[in-house]
Amino acid sequence: MDERVHAHAETLVDWSARIESGDDVVLRVSEGAHDLAVAVAEQLGERGANLVTVYDSAEVSRAYLTAHDGEFEADPEYERSLYEQADSVLSLGGGRNTTALADVPGERRQAAGKAHEGIREARLATDWVSTVHPTRSLAQQAGMAYEEYRDFVYDAVLRDWESLAEEMGRLKDILDDGEEVRIVGEGTDVTMSIADRIAVNSAASVAYDSHNLPSGEVFTAPADTEGEVTFDVPMTINDRRVRDVHLVFEDGEVVDYDAQQGEDVITELLDTDAGAKRLGELGIGMNRGIDRPTDTILFDEKMGGTVHMALGRAYGANFPEGHEDEQNESAVHADLITDMGEGSRMEVDGEVVQRDGSFRWEEGFGG
Amino acid sequence: MDERVHAHAETLVDWSARIESGDDVVLRVSEGAHDLAVAVAEQLGERGANLVTVYDSAEVSRAYLTAHDGEFEADPEYERSLYEQADSVLSLGGGRNTTALADVPGERRQAAGKAHEGIREARLATDWVSTVHPTRSLAQQAGMAYEEYRDFVYDAVLRDWESLAEEMGRLKDILDDGEEVRIVGEGTDVTMSIADRIAVNSAASVAYDSHNLPSGEVFTAPADTEGEVTFDVPMTINDRRVRDVHLVFEDGEVVDYDAQQGEDVITELLDTDAGAKRLGELGIGMNRGIDRPTDTILFDEKMGGTVHMALGRAYGANFPEGHEDEQNESAVHADLITDMGEGSRMEVDGEVVQRDGSFRWEEGFGG
Repeated sequence: MDERVHAHAETLVDWSARIESGDDVVLRVSEGAHDLAVAVAEQLGERGANLVTVYDSAEVSRAYLTAHDGEFEADPEYERSLYEQADSVLSLGGGRNTTALADVPGERRQAAGKAHEGIREARLATDWVSTVHPTRSLAQQAGMAYEEYRDFVYDAVLRDWESLAEEMGRLKDILDDGEEVRIVGEGTDVTMSIADRIAVNSAASVAYDSHNLPSGEVFTAPADTEGEVTFDVPMTINDRRVRDVHLVFEDGEVVDYDAQQGEDVITELLDTDAGAKRLGELGIGMNRGIDRPTDTILFDEKMGGTVHMALGRAYGANFPEGHEDEQNESAVHADLITDMGEGSRMEVDGEVVQRDGSFRWEEGFGG
Repeated sequence: MDERVHAHAETLVDWSARIESGDDVVLRVSEGAHDLAVAVAEQLGERGANLVTVYDSAEVSRAYLTAHDGEFEADPEYERSLYEQADSVLSLGGGRNTTALADVPGERRQAAGKAHEGIREARLATDWVSTVHPTRSLAQQAGMAYEEYRDFVYDAVLRDWESLAEEMGRLKDILDDGEEVRIVGEGTDVTMSIADRIAVNSAASVAYDSHNLPSGEVFTAPADTEGEVTFDVPMTINDRRVRDVHLVFEDGEVVDYDAQQGEDVITELLDTDAGAKRLGELGIGMNRGIDRPTDTILFDEKMGGTVHMALGRAYGANFPEGHEDEQNESAVHADLITDMGEGSRMEVDGEVVQRDGSFRWEEGFGG
């Protein structure tokens, strides 16, 4: 077994999930994640945690959902109690076919999801962590060779998380103390208010209320956005490609937009509801292990030297007591990413925090 | 997918487990049993049962057990409640290596088993059924080619169970009404009392209190065994080969024995405790789909035209109210099998029930 599988498991169990002796752990294993499951089980055994292993197979789900009449029982108690009593739920993604559920009718999947809403909530109330084991299927989705994709995933996962968390802590402090962010780049000059907001240091650990491995971003909830942004990192939204989306904001709302590709997707998004025209998130990618977009939001939005903004729903964690009612509500949360390359800068209250993609505490940062 | 996988799943869900709408089902999937799991999930979806899929991986277990210090928590509640609330537990055997746990110290496995005794009992209190998906690993253990082994398994599993259950019911009635069984063959002439015993019709269905698919045997609990038996079907007991075991009984106990191979294993067995010298079971194999021994007791003891006797512990199901205290107790239950071929016969109270391997209601039965 690739030694990095063991290192991945150790990072997941120690840094991310903080598993201790006696913890009740549910390990959810995708079809292609067997090797990582073995390595994680070893870590759990070593720590004296308890282990229940769930087979999270897309093909089993497809067969079940396709054959079912769609009248799902709400939150079967035997399953709910498993998650309600668990301390941690570790989900190992990595299937054999990312489109394994493609022929299950959407309403069937939605009905199943809705019927299991309580179980999902119970799972999210634990110290849950999701990660992915690099499979050939995911390599294909990322447009990479298998070996290449493994290198890519492990570069992103096997960081010095303690030091990265510290660095991200610096940015969090700047954002927490700041009132206004301005981002300037090619086709971009936008300002937004971040007063009375708490930035989240998403350091891939439940200790930071961060539940994905890899992670590596600091995010907050902006308001009163003014100006224009061009999102030059290509993405897939609602199964369609979008590229070079350009948004113009006035009084916090999108008033004009265009895109090189997928403009209709943006139209649909903005038409969803009132909240979809406002930003719910400003995120700053700080994971230098992620060096290119792979059309997987879990990785792309964490890319070091990028910034993402999400149209729609904001995260509650960004709102301090007394400001909860300022949280942007929407049925959508659509991330769009822009590369902070040569000529770009990010200012907080007029002070330059990042220039040409380098933070002011980094070596490459010029005066 | 081999159409027989679907037929296997249907037999398991319908005939064996009697799954109905709303049943809470735990599906336990071995590493190599994915295809059968998909087919079973389809059947469960069709019936509107609920589904939790557990990954029953020997390699995950090995990693966990090997790394653990051996001080296992007794019956973690989150796992126990899953099984306590389940209606059915369907276990799909079929791994990728039957010796995957070979280097886990025996005491570690025993400690884990002991700590999970309550969970095991909860599982056995459900309508549980165990079956196997034919894998290359199991084919290898059986000494067969993969294709050959698949034919073998499906011949054993895909029976007309309703008609077989009816046929086995005939034998059960004869045994229930009988007082004494006599078995005669080459190197065998033995009599035993079956008075006040209930024969179990093991028809591979929870409706018959029979929990293995395939099954196909009728078994009872004999007493006062007199005479000699030669067990000519080779077997593996405690990881060692035994062949042509010959036992001599007086007053219900083994008083002399020898074997062509593995005599030391028999010595060990008989020395375990007082109950190990007496028979706990007389079973009559009636599954004509199983046409050869494969050194897998689940299949071998069901072979049509064979009889097996177990040294040691008897099953409670054979003892009617008021006779429970006659149940033979022992730490062991070791099955030994003899082929009822040419020249053999089985009598109940002096009447021939089987001759030359054919029952008296079968075509081949000569006067």
